[in-house]
Amino acid sequence: MKNSASLFKNNPGPALKVPGFVAGAVTSGLKKDGKKDLGMIFSEVSACAAGVFTTNLVQAAPVLLDKERIKTGRCQAIVANSGNANACTGRRGIEDAEAVARVAAVALGIPEELVLVASTGVIGQRLNVSAIEVAMPKLVGQLNGSGFYDMAEAIMTTVTFPKIFSKQGYIAGKVFTVGGVAKGAGMIHPDMATMLCLLCTDIGAKQDLLIPALKEAVATSFNAITVDGDTSTNDTVLLLANGLSGLSLREASCATAFQKVLNEVLFTLALQIVKDGEGATKLVSIHVEGASNADDARQVAYTVANSPLVKTALFGEDANWGRIMAAVGRAGVPINPETIDIVFEDVYVVRDGEGIGKQAEEAATTVLKGDRFTITIDLKMGSEGATIHTCDLSTDYVQVNAAYRS
Amino acid sequence: MKNSASLFKNNPGPALKVPGFVAGAVTSGLKKDGKKDLGMIFSEVSACAAGVFTTNLVQAAPVLLDKERIKTGRCQAIVANSGNANACTGRRGIEDAEAVARVAAVALGIPEELVLVASTGVIGQRLNVSAIEVAMPKLVGQLNGSGFYDMAEAIMTTVTFPKIFSKQGYIAGKVFTVGGVAKGAGMIHPDMATMLCLLCTDIGAKQDLLIPALKEAVATSFNAITVDGDTSTNDTVLLLANGLSGLSLREASCATAFQKVLNEVLFTLALQIVKDGEGATKLVSIHVEGASNADDARQVAYTVANSPLVKTALFGEDANWGRIMAAVGRAGVPINPETIDIVFEDVYVVRDGEGIGKQAEEAATTVLKGDRFTITIDLKMGSEGATIHTCDLSTDYVQVNAAYRS
Repeated sequence: MKNSASLFKNNPGPALKVPGFVAGAVTSGLKKDGKKDLGMIFSEVSACAAGVFTTNLVQAAPVLLDKERIKTGRCQAIVANSGNANACTGRRGIEDAEAVARVAAVALGIPEELVLVASTGVIGQRLNVSAIEVAMPKLVGQLNGSGFYDMAEAIMTTVTFPKIFSKQGYIAGKVFTVGGVAKGAGMIHPDMATMLCLLCTDIGAKQDLLIPALKEAVATSFNAITVDGDTSTNDTVLLLANGLSGLSLREASCATAFQKVLNEVLFTLALQIVKDGEGATKLVSIHVEGASNADDARQVAYTVANSPLVKTALFGEDANWGRIMAAVGRAGVPINPETIDIVFEDVYVVRDGEGIGKQAEEAATTVLKGDRFTITIDLKMGSEGATIHTCDLSTDYVQVNAAYRS
Repeated sequence: MKNSASLFKNNPGPALKVPGFVAGAVTSGLKKDGKKDLGMIFSEVSACAAGVFTTNLVQAAPVLLDKERIKTGRCQAIVANSGNANACTGRRGIEDAEAVARVAAVALGIPEELVLVASTGVIGQRLNVSAIEVAMPKLVGQLNGSGFYDMAEAIMTTVTFPKIFSKQGYIAGKVFTVGGVAKGAGMIHPDMATMLCLLCTDIGAKQDLLIPALKEAVATSFNAITVDGDTSTNDTVLLLANGLSGLSLREASCATAFQKVLNEVLFTLALQIVKDGEGATKLVSIHVEGASNADDARQVAYTVANSPLVKTALFGEDANWGRIMAAVGRAGVPINPETIDIVFEDVYVVRDGEGIGKQAEEAATTVLKGDRFTITIDLKMGSEGATIHTCDLSTDYVQVNAAYRS
């Protein structure tokens, strides 16, 4: 993918369908602006469920509830709302999350234990459960196979476009689909309850295989992006697998094909989130190679990707490699300043720790004028690498975040 | 100190004098804008010297040279320039730093080993040693006891005011002085070669006592502030002690009095730096108490103090405590979300992990409208604490740093 347009060229938009799943969204009044704020994904049959949740020690009520419920390995419906994160709401917050699941279960006619919930919005205010209760029959009544785009809209907050993607895989004449919706930006605004990703597939699976598959896909997607280093109280990735394709993860060839498709769906949704980072104008991949080990590579890439000085220089289209060198030097891993190369796409600006000169910087500035590019940092300490995807830090980021609640 | 004005009310400005020391500054042409860019502090007698340097693994040439030279424990002159950091300049950078020291030594008529150097400015470009050589006689010729304010101006970059402070102490009818100049903002812009602090005192000392005293003062001042979490290639704190007061650190009562004065001088200079953080409008102390140990307290305070979301909320004067809770939760230390209190000055906004309500937030918003205040976070996990001083993140920060080199 060379430019950001390709992130969206396969975006199915309203056409996204996953066999056996229906979705939809309504306006319940949780958002003040009258936009869609309550959505649901429903599987016609009980599905296998896997989840990955925030590592933040302050966890919102829906995260605490889902982590408990998902232990059974089964789920049939996910209810998600925006406008309120139901975080830092104590025991009453848990009761509110349980009440939402119960209201949905009653409307759907399924056991309440098969309902998971997700919330995003302001922290510290009680969820208006009555509003959700009033809206629930209408929501259930309009569930349909093409409702995923509405669902993606219902979990939007300050983001500028709905994130939705799907892809099919083929095994021995059979087809399977992985599709999902997301909201971001991951790690960008914890008070917005940040990153949600709700996924469906018609592959057949049990949790023992579905969980590792989801974790692998998250590692190279949502855990390889950063907007500002902040992680939220509500980050949640849920995957439901209903088995209707007739294909099963138990077969090795199927597992390989599924992993590839799952990785691509999550990666694309993750890049859509970075691209939509508040005020972001550029999508930048920081690739570190030549590290002694993968952890070091990742640590250096993260430090560079999160440096406000690097990110403001990217916004200013300034090939200010000194800021990158300084970030590498404070990453907390062993490096040798005299062996470092820095390359903007294919333009070397630093070789063995020293700047190459004005001409190289001018060529690098041309690279920076693009809206998607890679900066490679070669440490020459070993043979391990890591890539972190980030965005620039613009004046708009500050404006959006300073003014958010006012 | 309740407001920022007090940071400066004892600012001696041009009146700063330390017995036995002279200082001065000139324009050598390193800065494009024709402002002062080359300064010197000279001790009439060879002084004991102590230094604290950046922990960044990418270290500028002057840092590498000073770390070597200061091992002898003696120094008589410090030469500092702005406009060029002499960082990432390889072997030739070291030679350039040595040449600057040699040129100064010849002009002063002292051994070159007694000269230390410091640089701040753009990374990766060679220092114009000839310009410094041409300017040196004029610089030496105008050294005088009241030249510290000029010296403070000569190390300014994007900062808006010179940082200068001094204080006297009294022991048994004798007086001693600690005075110094600084430039910042600490950890704010590594390409500007960031934080320099050059200090003089007429106390008598050997390195075995002077180094621990300086380290203690740095721990509660420059190592307790943050602007954006970035650390530079050039951070340097130097302290020269010439003994002319007739008082010595060997006497216990003198050591105690000296430590107190030194701590206050460094703390005041450090707060001046934060207050002058690029685009900063507020000076905010993040105080964590009730931690299991001091490291945990410091880690939590730093994570909150560096969170772009917290800092933009401070700029927006929004009592958005959810962002503080989320930062505490991701600090990487054990906490219990259900025991946390958050207090803006004396206004409780969170008690036991839950928001207190709209009225408390309104009172907190009044606190936020001030330009100096403390946010206290009580973890109730133990009895240790730590305080980190930070500033808000404004749209001006992004503008300054995006446009810096253009």
